[in-house]
Formats: sequence, C-alpha cells, structure tokens
Amino acid sequence: MAGGNDDRRFMRLALSLGARGMGQVWPNPAVGCVIVKAGRIVGRGWTQPGGRPHAEAMALAEAGPAAAGATAYVSLEPCAHYGKTPPCAEALVRAGIARVVSALHDPDPRVAGRGHAILRAAGVEVSEGVEAAAAETDHQGFLMRVREGRPMLTLKLATSFDGRIATASGESQWITGPAARHLVHAERARHDAVLVGGGTARADDPMLTVRGMGMSRQPVRIVAARHLNLPLDGRLARSVDAAPLWLLYQEASVDLALEDRWRAIGARLLPVPLGPGRQLDPPGMMRALGAAGITRVFCEGGGQFAASLLSAGMVDRLIGFTAGLALGAEGRPALGAMGVDALQDAPRFRLAATEAVGPDVLHRWVRA
Amino acid sequence: MAGGNDDRRFMRLALSLGARGMGQVWPNPAVGCVIVKAGRIVGRGWTQPGGRPHAEAMALAEAGPAAAGATAYVSLEPCAHYGKTPPCAEALVRAGIARVVSALHDPDPRVAGRGHAILRAAGVEVSEGVEAAAAETDHQGFLMRVREGRPMLTLKLATSFDGRIATASGESQWITGPAARHLVHAERARHDAVLVGGGTARADDPMLTVRGMGMSRQPVRIVAARHLNLPLDGRLARSVDAAPLWLLYQEASVDLALEDRWRAIGARLLPVPLGPGRQLDPPGMMRALGAAGITRVFCEGGGQFAASLLSAGMVDRLIGFTAGLALGAEGRPALGAMGVDALQDAPRFRLAATEAVGPDVLHRWVRA
Repeated sequence: MAGGNDDRRFMRLALSLGARGMGQVWPNPAVGCVIVKAGRIVGRGWTQPGGRPHAEAMALAEAGPAAAGATAYVSLEPCAHYGKTPPCAEALVRAGIARVVSALHDPDPRVAGRGHAILRAAGVEVSEGVEAAAAETDHQGFLMRVREGRPMLTLKLATSFDGRIATASGESQWITGPAARHLVHAERARHDAVLVGGGTARADDPMLTVRGMGMSRQPVRIVAARHLNLPLDGRLARSVDAAPLWLLYQEASVDLALEDRWRAIGARLLPVPLGPGRQLDPPGMMRALGAAGITRVFCEGGGQFAASLLSAGMVDRLIGFTAGLALGAEGRPALGAMGVDALQDAPRFRLAATEAVGPDVLHRWVRA
Repeated sequence: MAGGNDDRRFMRLALSLGARGMGQVWPNPAVGCVIVKAGRIVGRGWTQPGGRPHAEAMALAEAGPAAAGATAYVSLEPCAHYGKTPPCAEALVRAGIARVVSALHDPDPRVAGRGHAILRAAGVEVSEGVEAAAAETDHQGFLMRVREGRPMLTLKLATSFDGRIATASGESQWITGPAARHLVHAERARHDAVLVGGGTARADDPMLTVRGMGMSRQPVRIVAARHLNLPLDGRLARSVDAAPLWLLYQEASVDLALEDRWRAIGARLLPVPLGPGRQLDPPGMMRALGAAGITRVFCEGGGQFAASLLSAGMVDRLIGFTAGLALGAEGRPALGAMGVDALQDAPRFRLAATEAVGPDVLHRWVRA
C-alpha cells in the first residue's frame, strides 16, 4: 500500500470531499483536493456542480499564498489539458506547491500521465497510488466511461423478504419504509442519471427527481422506450423544465412526427440498436449513455428491464432493500425471466455492506 | 426496568447460560442460574440435556456450602412441583440461599407463583422481573406452549437476492455459502425440532440432522405429509436411530398398514385435522407439536408449506439469508401463493438484526 499514514489520511479526506460532487459533475470526474502545510489543512476543494471549477482550483483559492511549499492531495491525477480553464497541473506549479500526492493515474487520453509529468518537470515531488483502491471505487463511473465507453450501472431492488416488488394487483407503495425511500433519493442524487424501463414509466408515471435535498443539479431521467411509447402528457413529459428527460429508443421503429413531438417537449432522444430478443440492446444503451457523457447510472427497474441488464452483464453494483413482509408467489417478481438454468451461470455479486435502514435491511453488492 | 446494575448483569449471565440448553431440554424451559456471594460467582448452572437436572440444582451443586447466604439469579421462577426431583424452590431454601432474583414468573400451572411463594415463606428475599423482556424472548417457545398450547415457530428462508430458492430445474445447492449453512445447523441445534413440508422431503431427500457440532441430543425431524407419502427407504426413514422422526398426517386418509410400516421403522405419527384448502391445518399442526412437548420449531420450507404457515399466522420469527446472485423469474419462489392482494394484508415482521455471514446477508425478524 503506497503512502505513509498521514498521506493516506489526507487522501481519504480528499476522497470524501470528492464524493460530494458525485452525480453533479459529469462528464468530469468528482475529484477532491486537500492542501496541507506543516501538518495543517490550508485548502480544501472538490469539483463543482457542472464539472468546473476543478477541485485543485477550489483548494488553491482557499489556500491562497499558503499554497507555496505545501503538499496537495488529489484524488485523481491533475488535468493537463486546456479547456475553459488552464490545466490544474500548471495551476499547482504556479501556486508553488512543493509536493503532489495523487491517488490514481487519469486514463483520460488528454491527461494519461501528462498531469504528473508537468508537475515533475517543474520540480514538484509527485507520489502516486495513495489509496488507489478506494479511488478506483469512487471514480468507477468516470474510469469505466474512459476505458470502456460506458457508465457504471447501479441497480436498485426494493423487495419484500420473499423478493416481490408489488402485490399481484400492482400495489407497491410502500413496501419499504421512509428511511429506505430517503436513501433512494440520496442515491439518485449521487448518480448522473436515473434509468427505468418503459413499462415502469407507463405503469407508475413516476417523476424520478430528487426531492428534499436542495439539489443544484437534478440527475438526468432516462427511459428505455423502444417505440417512444410513453404518454406525452405524463409526469415525466410535463416536468422537463425541472430535470432533463432522455429517451432511449429504436430510431427505425418510430416515425419522425413522434420524434419531433418529444423533441418539442424538450426530451433528448438517443437511438439504440436492437439486441438479441428484439429489445433495445443493453450494451448499446450503455454505450449511448457513455457517449452522451454519463458516468453513473442508477436503475430502478422494472423487473424485466433489470433482468435484461443483469443478463447482459451490465450491472456493476446492486443496492437491495429487504422489507419485513411476505407477499407470496402471486406478487410481482423483482427480476423478470433470465434464462438461468444452472447456479454457476447466475450473475454473482460480492457483499460490500449491510445495515438496518429504518425497518428494512439495506445490502450493497458489487460485481463479483 | 427492575433491578440494579449488578442484578441485571448477573441475570444476563444467567440468561446466556440458560441459552446453552435451547433445543436440548424440551418440554422443559432452558433456564440458567448464577449464584453470587459477596460479589463473587460461586455457582453456575443451566438445564441439562433432556430437561434435568435443572439449572438451580447444577448451580447449587457447584456452589456447595458457599450457597449459604448467597444470592441466586434464575432466568425463570424456580419450580415448585415434585417431579423426578424435589422442587428447586425448596432446594434453594435448603441450601441457605438468602436472596433469589428471578427474571420471570413461570406461567406453568404447576408453578405459577408458587416457586416464589415457597421462597418467601421460608424467609428468602425475592426480586422478580429483572431482565424480564430478554427472558420473555429466550423462553418464548416454552411460554407459548404453556400459554397457547403451541410451540414458537422460526422460519428460515435462504434465497438469491431476487428471492429464489432454486433454479427452474431445481438446482439449489448451494445458493448460500458455507458460513450460512453452518449457521443453519447451529439454529437447528437451538430448536427442539426441524420441520419441512412433504414436497421438500420427497424432492431433497434430506437428513435434517445437526452435523459437526457434537450434539448430545438431535432435534426431532418432523415432516408434514398428509398421506404419509414419503419414501420408506429414504434418508429420513433410514436414519431414525440417529434422530427422531415424527410425521404429521391426516389419519383418515392413510390406511392402517401404512401407519404400521412407519411405526415399525420407528417414526412417531401425529394426526392433524385438515384446514381450509384441504391441507393439514397449520394451527392444528402446531397444537399437535405443542401437545407432544415441542417448544421451539425451525421450519426450512419448502415454499408452499412456508407460505401456508405464514398465511395462518404461525410464524413467530424469520431468519433470512440473501445471497449475491440473481436467478430471475423462472427460479423457484421462496414462498408459494399466499393470496395477499393488498400490502396492508401482508404478514409483517420487525427487523431484529442484520449482519454479513460469509458472502451472504443474514437478517433476523420477529413477528410485528
């Protein structure tokens, strides 16, 4: 494990600051920065909503002249490219930072080691790889988008303890308690986008916004609706001013007039090819979202849509809520058909955490 | 809350000693006893396998002459009736115990306050109700049998995170990991009996014994098989010498020759009336087990049998294991049909604890 105790401690602080930007900064990474001089924290920063200013700029601004001779802890390699602002690597040099501790090499081809190189060329000492594993986890969506062209996908399942998400008649409000539902809103806020299948959008007429958290930037609401067959007067369509609405669809199966009506409402249309099974191709959907800049997606169902994402190996993290009630076999299953015949073929996940949340059990899993 | 800090601390120790007897002592309660003199523990005891000697006798034997003038902490009112041994209340008096702290009044009509009365009549100071809530929980099976004529029922559900207990083809070994399976054996050991439906017994040909724990007394294995339609050469039938086998059945639907064959094997037959739905009546099953002396039952399925117990309100505790794999809607459901149309009609449970057990989530629930 790279880094001394102090280095790791300050890096963990930088990571926790960076996490504040999750869901708010796409397509940029949610970076955190701590500037430390003689053991004292003189500057703290994180990527701001919309992706700028960057964490380093915020921390340098807070540190002011105290940055000279200080150490900067950055949860990702400082950027090296001129965008709307000069690169952070140069700003760190200009401020007189003596040492930069970075958690992770940035695979973005515009950075890719050049941030560290600029620093070293200017005589700044650079330590890489401090708390790298934690940084890989925090930056997973950004890294996947850069490396694989698709965002990280978190799937939420909130079920009775026998794995049902509604009664046979469709009643689902509420299986889990207020604390779990609040946590779902917090998870929406930490993702760039909320994704549901068209069936759920038609059945539940949801808003999919984050409520009660004073959000400066709502997550993008995305519906997979092959034929754009959603109500033009539904709650999603009527709330485009409150939060973006994107629709994944098959271009060839929709006439231009319907596309125009959705565009006139303000929705963004993302064409996706069909996959096996004549459904929108799950990897194709993820590629389309990655190309549009999305790094973290939170999928809330329904069961058949979630099953297709799981079967296609698109689910990176799972958040499960188990409630203390039994609905029986007539209830609606949490996941639709998956064609799993043998246990060894089932998608598997590794338990990351479990705890009580109000009256329910929360369990977090990551791809095994 | 009754009792000072010391009283509560010693009572918690008595409760934890008493818990050692769980599953081993039916139809008796699993009692614990600690004898304390001048702040020092001079005797400890718990109800021995088979139900005797009682906890007080064990603790008094360990204390010897030090019992004179000491305080005895007992997790249930000392018995007052002559059985194979004289009543514990009298033994405590004879040993010169000066004070008895008891957690709970024993509702057994042979005791019912007479244990405390014997002590008081002999000049022993008696404090009742110390850690009473914890004692109610520990003695729940014994208390339910005395008060309601039926044992406590714990239902185990071990599922994929979408609530499935097997693939469509029936593969179920293993959904959960070794740590969860070990814990299931420990739970079997802490119950008087293990109960499954006939379908599970036919499909899985299980042993239902406790393995790898050096058990002095195996739990009774109980199968609900209305027509006694189990294989006479199955693993349950062939292992009656290793652990008792009881069969719940409908007397009128089985001919005498088949009854005789099962009795010849060594099985005990318990007739149960039919309930609504032409199945063995769940309350009738529980009454039959209560009448036979069983205080704690651990049900391991299958799904339809578990659903019938839940629907009938017979499930007092739930132990769930959630594994990190997805099986999809074709998988076998954890619970069969329950006829729950509205969420408010669903059986509800209160979360008691959750923790990781190996790669799986364990969650414990009690009737809400």
